[in-house]
Amino acid sequence: MPSRPAPPSSDLLARFAAIVGGRHALTAPDVTRPYLIEWRDRYEGASPMVLRPGSTAEVAAILKLASETGTPIVPQGGNTGLVGGQVPDESGTEIVLSLGRLDRIRAVDPAASTMTAEAGVILDRIHDAADAADRLFPLTLGSQGSCTIGGNLSSNAGGTAVLAYGNARDMVLGLEVVLPTGEIVEGLRALRKDNAGYDLKQLFLGTEGTLGVITAAVLKLWAKPKAQEVAVAGVATPADALAALGLAKTRAGAQLTAFEIMPRQLVEFCLRHQPGSRDPLSTPAPWYLLVEVSVGTGPAEAHALMEAVLEDGLAAGLIEDATIAQSVAQAKDFWRMRHGMSEVQKHEGGSIKHDVSLPLSALPEFLTRATEAVERLVPGCRPVPFGHLGDGNIHFNVSQPVGADKAAFLAGWEAMNAVVHGIVTELGGSIAAEHGVGRMKREMLAGVRSPVEMMLMRRLKATLDPAGILNPGKVV
Amino acid sequence: MPSRPAPPSSDLLARFAAIVGGRHALTAPDVTRPYLIEWRDRYEGASPMVLRPGSTAEVAAILKLASETGTPIVPQGGNTGLVGGQVPDESGTEIVLSLGRLDRIRAVDPAASTMTAEAGVILDRIHDAADAADRLFPLTLGSQGSCTIGGNLSSNAGGTAVLAYGNARDMVLGLEVVLPTGEIVEGLRALRKDNAGYDLKQLFLGTEGTLGVITAAVLKLWAKPKAQEVAVAGVATPADALAALGLAKTRAGAQLTAFEIMPRQLVEFCLRHQPGSRDPLSTPAPWYLLVEVSVGTGPAEAHALMEAVLEDGLAAGLIEDATIAQSVAQAKDFWRMRHGMSEVQKHEGGSIKHDVSLPLSALPEFLTRATEAVERLVPGCRPVPFGHLGDGNIHFNVSQPVGADKAAFLAGWEAMNAVVHGIVTELGGSIAAEHGVGRMKREMLAGVRSPVEMMLMRRLKATLDPAGILNPGKVV
Repeated sequence: MPSRPAPPSSDLLARFAAIVGGRHALTAPDVTRPYLIEWRDRYEGASPMVLRPGSTAEVAAILKLASETGTPIVPQGGNTGLVGGQVPDESGTEIVLSLGRLDRIRAVDPAASTMTAEAGVILDRIHDAADAADRLFPLTLGSQGSCTIGGNLSSNAGGTAVLAYGNARDMVLGLEVVLPTGEIVEGLRALRKDNAGYDLKQLFLGTEGTLGVITAAVLKLWAKPKAQEVAVAGVATPADALAALGLAKTRAGAQLTAFEIMPRQLVEFCLRHQPGSRDPLSTPAPWYLLVEVSVGTGPAEAHALMEAVLEDGLAAGLIEDATIAQSVAQAKDFWRMRHGMSEVQKHEGGSIKHDVSLPLSALPEFLTRATEAVERLVPGCRPVPFGHLGDGNIHFNVSQPVGADKAAFLAGWEAMNAVVHGIVTELGGSIAAEHGVGRMKREMLAGVRSPVEMMLMRRLKATLDPAGILNPGKVV
Repeated sequence: MPSRPAPPSSDLLARFAAIVGGRHALTAPDVTRPYLIEWRDRYEGASPMVLRPGSTAEVAAILKLASETGTPIVPQGGNTGLVGGQVPDESGTEIVLSLGRLDRIRAVDPAASTMTAEAGVILDRIHDAADAADRLFPLTLGSQGSCTIGGNLSSNAGGTAVLAYGNARDMVLGLEVVLPTGEIVEGLRALRKDNAGYDLKQLFLGTEGTLGVITAAVLKLWAKPKAQEVAVAGVATPADALAALGLAKTRAGAQLTAFEIMPRQLVEFCLRHQPGSRDPLSTPAPWYLLVEVSVGTGPAEAHALMEAVLEDGLAAGLIEDATIAQSVAQAKDFWRMRHGMSEVQKHEGGSIKHDVSLPLSALPEFLTRATEAVERLVPGCRPVPFGHLGDGNIHFNVSQPVGADKAAFLAGWEAMNAVVHGIVTELGGSIAAEHGVGRMKREMLAGVRSPVEMMLMRRLKATLDPAGILNPGKVV
C-alpha cells in the first residue's frame, strides 16, 4: 500500500504528541535526523515527527490514532537495519515510532531460564543481564552495542551463533505486541511447549514491523558455557570447508558454537586496515575457518574437544593447518578479525553486497559460479564472500577493482545483484538470509516467491493492518 | 464454523472419488471404521467417504472441490492424535482425507543435513532413513511406530527430546502445503536462515490441519550421537528435581537429551503391570528422574559426563540415589518403563488426563496445589503426574481410587479438568502443551486466550479458509 500523499496536519501531529507528551515528540530537524538516516547512508528519509512512547499503552494509542486517520507509522529500534526497513521514505508523510524508551528488563528467572525484556533494550544489556544470572542469551551480532531486542525479533536476526542456537525466532517464548489497529496482544508466556491454539507470535517475528509492533518479549536463556576454545584453520576450497563442518558437527554436536568462513583476500584486507591484526597462520591459506566450541564442563574438556575436531579435519586431508587460540586475548583477536570483515571492506573502495543463504550442499557450487559470474561482469573486481558457513549464510560481497572509479562500480549494484541472486535462486537459496527485505529487496520479493506465497503475504497484511498504516512500502 | 448439515450427495461423492480413483475412495463401513475412531475411544465419528490421494495434485483437487461445494474435510495422518482433531464428527457430513499414501521419502541430503519426506511417512521410517545417512531425526514419541510426519508437524508434536532439540516446529525447514482453496504453497526450501518475506510455514505448523494440509516437508537432521548414557535418579521433591535439572543443564548443555520425571506411584504401576520391569533403585524414592546424555565423542566421555551430572546433584543434596544403566539393554529397560507410563494406568481403572505445561519455576507449586486440589475433589484418587520436566510439560493424570466405580469416576472428567486447568492458568501455564486442542479442548480455548488472540485466530481461519471447509469444529 503506498504512503498517503499528504503529510499529517499540525492538528493531527499535536494529537500524536499529546499521547507521549511534548518532550517525547521530536520535531526539530537536528534532533530527528539520526532517526531518518540508515547508517550505511543508503536511505535518508523525511518525517514530521519522531514519537518516543514510554509504555505499551502509549504505543497502542499511537497505532489506534494512526489507523483511524490513515497515518503511516515506521517502527524503529536501534536503527541498525541494513535494508532500509526502519527508516521513513522521502515523502515526509510518515511518522517514526522509536521504541527506545521501552528499555526495562522486566524480569529474569534463572530457574525457568527466561528473561522478560521490553523492545528497546539494547542487545548488549540483554547479554549482561543473562550473564549476571549465570545464563547465556546467545544472539551475537556485530551491532549488538546499539541494536535493540525488539528490532532483533522483528527482523528475525541471525548472526554467528545460529549454528548452535538458531535464529532470533528460536530464542523467544512469548511476545507482547500492539496490532496496527491498536489492540494489545498479551502473549508474554514463558512456556517451552504450548499448543493452545495458533502460535500467534510467529506473525510478528521476522515480519519487520509490518504486521504489529513488538513491545516486549519473554526470551529463552541457555546454560552459560564453562569453557570455550577458538581456533583458526586453513582449507583449500569451500568444499573442503563444508566437509570439515560435517565432521565437526558429528564430533561436537551442539557444542560447536561457531563455524565461520573467510577468504584469504579478506584476511589481507584486515592485515592492511585493522590495527594490530596478525596473520593467523604461518602459511597463507585460500580459505580460513573460525571454529568455536563451548562446553559445560571445563577448559581441559574444551581443549580436548577442539583438538579432536581439528584432528578429524587434518586426518581427512580437509584442514591444511590450524592454530588454537593460546589465550582469551588471542581468541578475541580471532573474533575481532571476523567481526571486522565488514568494516575493512570500506577501505578498499566500493563494495556491492549480497546477504544470501544456500542449502549447505549447494554452497561450493554457488561460490564457484557466483565468483566466475561477477568476475565476468566486472573484470578485476574482488569477490570477498564470507560469513556463517555453519548455517549456509554467506555475505557475498564484491570489492571494486583496484584503482577503479567507486561511483561507476557502485552504479552496477543492481546488475550484479541480478546475476548473483539468479544463481542463488537457481540453487534453491534465499536472497534475504538474515538482513531481511525491508525497502531494499521489496521489489525483488515477487521474483523469488510464488504468486501463491505473495498472495498469502498480502492477505496477512490486509487482515492485520486493514488501513495499511504500519511500515508501508516495506517487505510486501 | 459449524459443519454443513447435509451429507454430500452421491453425485458429489462420485466427483471426489474420481479424483483419487475408485480404489482409493473408501466407503464400506468395515473399511472406513478404523479412520473414524480415535484410538482411546473418546470419539467415534461418521463419514460417507475416506479419500486416500496419491499425490499433492490430488490433494489440491480434493480441497478445491470441497471449497467450491462447501464440503467439510478432515485431514488425517496416522490417527494417533489424543484430542480428537483427526476424526470426523458424528454428523456423517465430513469426508476424511487420509494422507497415508503420500509416503515417499523424496530425498536425503547428508551434506546439508536435510531430508525431504511426504506427509504420510511414518515417524519410525524417518528415523531409519536418517540413521542410514549417519544422521539423527530427534522427534521421539510413544506413537512413533504409527504416527506420520505430516501429523507430527500439523500438531507441533513434542515428546521426550524437546529439551535438547525443540518441538516438531523447530525440526522443519520448509513445507509443501495445500490451501483449503486448493492452491499449492511450494515451500520446500532447505535453508537454515531465510528472511525473504513472511515465514509462511508457521501458519501450518501446529494449526492441526485447520489452515492447510501439509503434503511434504524438508526436515532438519542432526549429527548422530556416538554414545549415550541413561540413568535413573531418586529425588525427594519436584523442587529438588528442578534444581537438579538446572545443574544438569549447566554441566551438560545441549548434551542433556532427556530429563523426565515420574512419581513412585507410577513406578509401582509398572512393577505391577509391565512384565519384566524391575525397581530401578534399591530404596524407593518419592520421585524418579530418567536422565539421558548424548555425545559426539565416545562412551568414555558419555560416562564421565553422566557421572559429573549425577555427582553435581548428589553433592548438592538434591539426588538421593542414582544408577547408571550398565548396558544398552538396561538403558532400554529404563526407557521402556518411562514409555509404558500411559499404558500401565489402564490397568488401574479410570484415568483423568491433563496435558499441561508450566514455566519451569512454577512447576513445584503447580504439582503441590494440583495434587491437593484433586485429592480434595475425589478423596482417595491417585494423582500420577509424570513427563517432560526438562521442558515443563507434565501429564497430570489421575487414577481412580482403588475399588471405586470407573464410570462414576470418569463422569467427573470435566469437573477435574476445570480445577486443574484453573491452577495451570493462574500460574501462567498451558492447558494444551503437546497434544493440541483438536475437538477436546476447543471450548476451553476462549478461557485461556484473550479476546484479541481469539479474534486473531478467527481472522486467520477466515482469511485462509473462507469456505470453512477444513477441519471444522477443531481448534478455533
